[in-house]
Amino acid sequence: MFSSPWLPFLLLFLSNSVTAFQFRIPRLSPIGEKFLHHSKALELPPSDDFKTFYFNQTLDHFNYRPESYTTFPQRYIINFKYWGGANSSAPILAYLGPEAPIDSAMNVIGFMTDNAVKFNALLVYIEHRYYGKSIPFGSRKEALRNASTLGYFNSAQALADYAAILIHVKKEFSAKYSPVIVIGGSYGGMLATWFRLKYPHVALGALASSAPILYFNDITPENGYYVIVTKDFREVSQTCYESIRESWSEIETVASQSNGLSVLDKVFKTCSPLRSSTQLENYLWFMYASAAQYNHPSRYPVNRICDAIDQTYSNGTLGKIAAGVFAYRGELSCYINEPINTTETTVGWQWQRCSEMVMPISTGNDTMFPSETFDHESFSIYCNQLYGVTPRPHWVTTYYGGHDIHLILHRFASNIIFSNGLKDPYSIGGVLHNISDSLLAVYTANGSHCLDILTANRMDPEWLVTQRKTEVGIIKEWIDEYYADLANYKK
Amino acid sequence: MFSSPWLPFLLLFLSNSVTAFQFRIPRLSPIGEKFLHHSKALELPPSDDFKTFYFNQTLDHFNYRPESYTTFPQRYIINFKYWGGANSSAPILAYLGPEAPIDSAMNVIGFMTDNAVKFNALLVYIEHRYYGKSIPFGSRKEALRNASTLGYFNSAQALADYAAILIHVKKEFSAKYSPVIVIGGSYGGMLATWFRLKYPHVALGALASSAPILYFNDITPENGYYVIVTKDFREVSQTCYESIRESWSEIETVASQSNGLSVLDKVFKTCSPLRSSTQLENYLWFMYASAAQYNHPSRYPVNRICDAIDQTYSNGTLGKIAAGVFAYRGELSCYINEPINTTETTVGWQWQRCSEMVMPISTGNDTMFPSETFDHESFSIYCNQLYGVTPRPHWVTTYYGGHDIHLILHRFASNIIFSNGLKDPYSIGGVLHNISDSLLAVYTANGSHCLDILTANRMDPEWLVTQRKTEVGIIKEWIDEYYADLANYKK
Repeated sequence: MFSSPWLPFLLLFLSNSVTAFQFRIPRLSPIGEKFLHHSKALELPPSDDFKTFYFNQTLDHFNYRPESYTTFPQRYIINFKYWGGANSSAPILAYLGPEAPIDSAMNVIGFMTDNAVKFNALLVYIEHRYYGKSIPFGSRKEALRNASTLGYFNSAQALADYAAILIHVKKEFSAKYSPVIVIGGSYGGMLATWFRLKYPHVALGALASSAPILYFNDITPENGYYVIVTKDFREVSQTCYESIRESWSEIETVASQSNGLSVLDKVFKTCSPLRSSTQLENYLWFMYASAAQYNHPSRYPVNRICDAIDQTYSNGTLGKIAAGVFAYRGELSCYINEPINTTETTVGWQWQRCSEMVMPISTGNDTMFPSETFDHESFSIYCNQLYGVTPRPHWVTTYYGGHDIHLILHRFASNIIFSNGLKDPYSIGGVLHNISDSLLAVYTANGSHCLDILTANRMDPEWLVTQRKTEVGIIKEWIDEYYADLANYKK
Repeated sequence: MFSSPWLPFLLLFLSNSVTAFQFRIPRLSPIGEKFLHHSKALELPPSDDFKTFYFNQTLDHFNYRPESYTTFPQRYIINFKYWGGANSSAPILAYLGPEAPIDSAMNVIGFMTDNAVKFNALLVYIEHRYYGKSIPFGSRKEALRNASTLGYFNSAQALADYAAILIHVKKEFSAKYSPVIVIGGSYGGMLATWFRLKYPHVALGALASSAPILYFNDITPENGYYVIVTKDFREVSQTCYESIRESWSEIETVASQSNGLSVLDKVFKTCSPLRSSTQLENYLWFMYASAAQYNHPSRYPVNRICDAIDQTYSNGTLGKIAAGVFAYRGELSCYINEPINTTETTVGWQWQRCSEMVMPISTGNDTMFPSETFDHESFSIYCNQLYGVTPRPHWVTTYYGGHDIHLILHRFASNIIFSNGLKDPYSIGGVLHNISDSLLAVYTANGSHCLDILTANRMDPEWLVTQRKTEVGIIKEWIDEYYADLANYKK
């Protein structure tokens, strides 16, 4: 195990060079941080309607060692403005924070604020442990020190945190019979699904946006993600797809020549000289993935890249690809080797992936990428070197299930919306068919990652407006049905 | 926290004098060990049809500290004799071991063996961690050393153990689509319920016999248990009930006189002199509770005690009570202060109660016992003195639910039989009304604790035969429905 002074450095080093790339596993967040639309909403402070609270959270819910009883302050934020109140058992919409600080959620996760009036809902946003201000062990540095302090950082503990806080909130505001709808996107969408499955006594239903709950073990084909990325590009332009597919060997050929890397530096206007062709390839690889995943209708980055590729004729294929980069990133003084801010998400998710969130994503055939398998053994070695512990790739399906989910849940559970946009490469690991009358797949052919839970905008395409309407209608039905049940129950 | 050399002594001391009695919480096992019918089955080795296996179990499923990865051998036992095999997806009946070694289950839990042929079932018996041969930390002494080693000893970890083993067994015997029915009684019945709720992808259904899943927090009236004990005695004989009710003050009166304790010694033929009247009271208290709880139709101990009480006229009320003791225990050279073997169950359950299984049971009004409240604060102090950790009385309802269970589960979950016998005082904390079409309460008016899962006997009363038939019929329906679903699914 690496001792503390080295870990931050290693994380940084690895997140740029090995982690993020060696295993070619794209990020899993409701919004694309670095590459996507540069939303100002991310930086705005939330309005005064939001009040911050801290809950004394138990460090380890599933253990009774004296250390397990340690508590840490967990942040949650409430908006009371729209709430119909406890007397009418008005609903609670609870956003289950994913692998990031909760700060921007109040502005970004518009599904909550946009629908608060409609539901007369109390809005609750809960931060995930080990992110933002919800840090055990007194400081982030201590919490991330090594596997002994990171060990408590996992999804089962996070779900128990949410349960404890929601039970506390309901008690605090005498809202015993207020139905709770949990909402989450991406990893947060997995948490929302699992929360409804494990804590039906706390949440009446879940909206799980772009939650690839089936991208574990052997349930989804490993190359599924990049098959969709490829399809997205190919559907926009066959020639664009071909240029990209051909570019990899072109890059290798140029790089292998003497002075080849500086040729690439020039073509791609790199911020600092490339140390290897892999650096460039990694960058492109993730640009294509991010463009496809966060293909927001306000700018359609896949089209933007392909337009540039198709309309550039200087410098051959590499000139085309470079034009794609410039178009995607916009006017900058240089590209590729830009300084990268290591975010909490990068650091935190690296641990989560190395412990339990082992999503085996590879390329293989049928993609425009060079073939790369997900090698469990080297992933395991890599995680071991980083943290001194080995991933548990089977735990997610052991605890949450996933195999044969239609067969298993057809007569079990209720009230989950699995929403997806089929252009989102992660949708391949989502639930895309109704499982039962109340375990529903709501997807759009043209949507990308988590669009439905983002703030509505008058420029939103009709299909997105419709998707959100459908979701609100379903949730309304659940709540109405619950109120009818409640009236009978209280008789 | 007590350090190791003292703990075993303290456990022994407390189990006899404080634990078992101070909080008047009766044991919670499928069979009554000390007081009940002296079944030879307990001592018989199981037949050669049973094969023992050990699984390398993870110490802590919900944590990724390096220590969490430690493994320990967990015992499970399989009977292959009746199995229809993987090709026909023949069912698996899995007995989830409760707070005791698994050894006697093969003979005692007849529901498994009695119905194996009918279901062509594979029989699997899994031992609960920290009992029998399923001990972490290399030895029982180490495992029970203190809260740091006991911390991993809880129900959530046990359920994850069962999931891991059942998934392993299904894989090992290529039984991917074999439906699993989990079966448990008492605490094991709670585990069976919770297992179906948390791991529906591993178990198709659960038979939860005499599982007081609602005896937590404020869901069930605290005096419920002893109200039923009282009712059981009163229904057998009003005069018996009155004698018992009056006896407590009588004991106090005699005990307070000079030489009073030796008078009691003489009347009750104690094995060694009483040190206090409490000793005698505790004994009687638990005798009545056990007689009611384990009121097996083969001997009906409540009737036996009452017959003796009603038919004895020498030595007044105390003579009657003593006659009850003699009748209950049978011919012995002495009574009351008999040497007690501290069982694994006594020791293990004490920890479980002090950590999460906090069932607040008191007497209060409407009982034939002196009024005693369950004082959470002194219980907490007591557990703290013993183990250095504080109980988490709200964890069970946070993780498993329980409040408003009919409202919550009416449209969630499926395939659980909550079986009870209404003479069992724990039935007051059980589910006694159907929650939905497949969450079913199957109870008998005259039954006691866990009768339905014990080995059938040609002397069994008709109502017990019927109860078992009903249960088998329901399980058969679940399996048939599953096979129909499976056929559709595979199409």
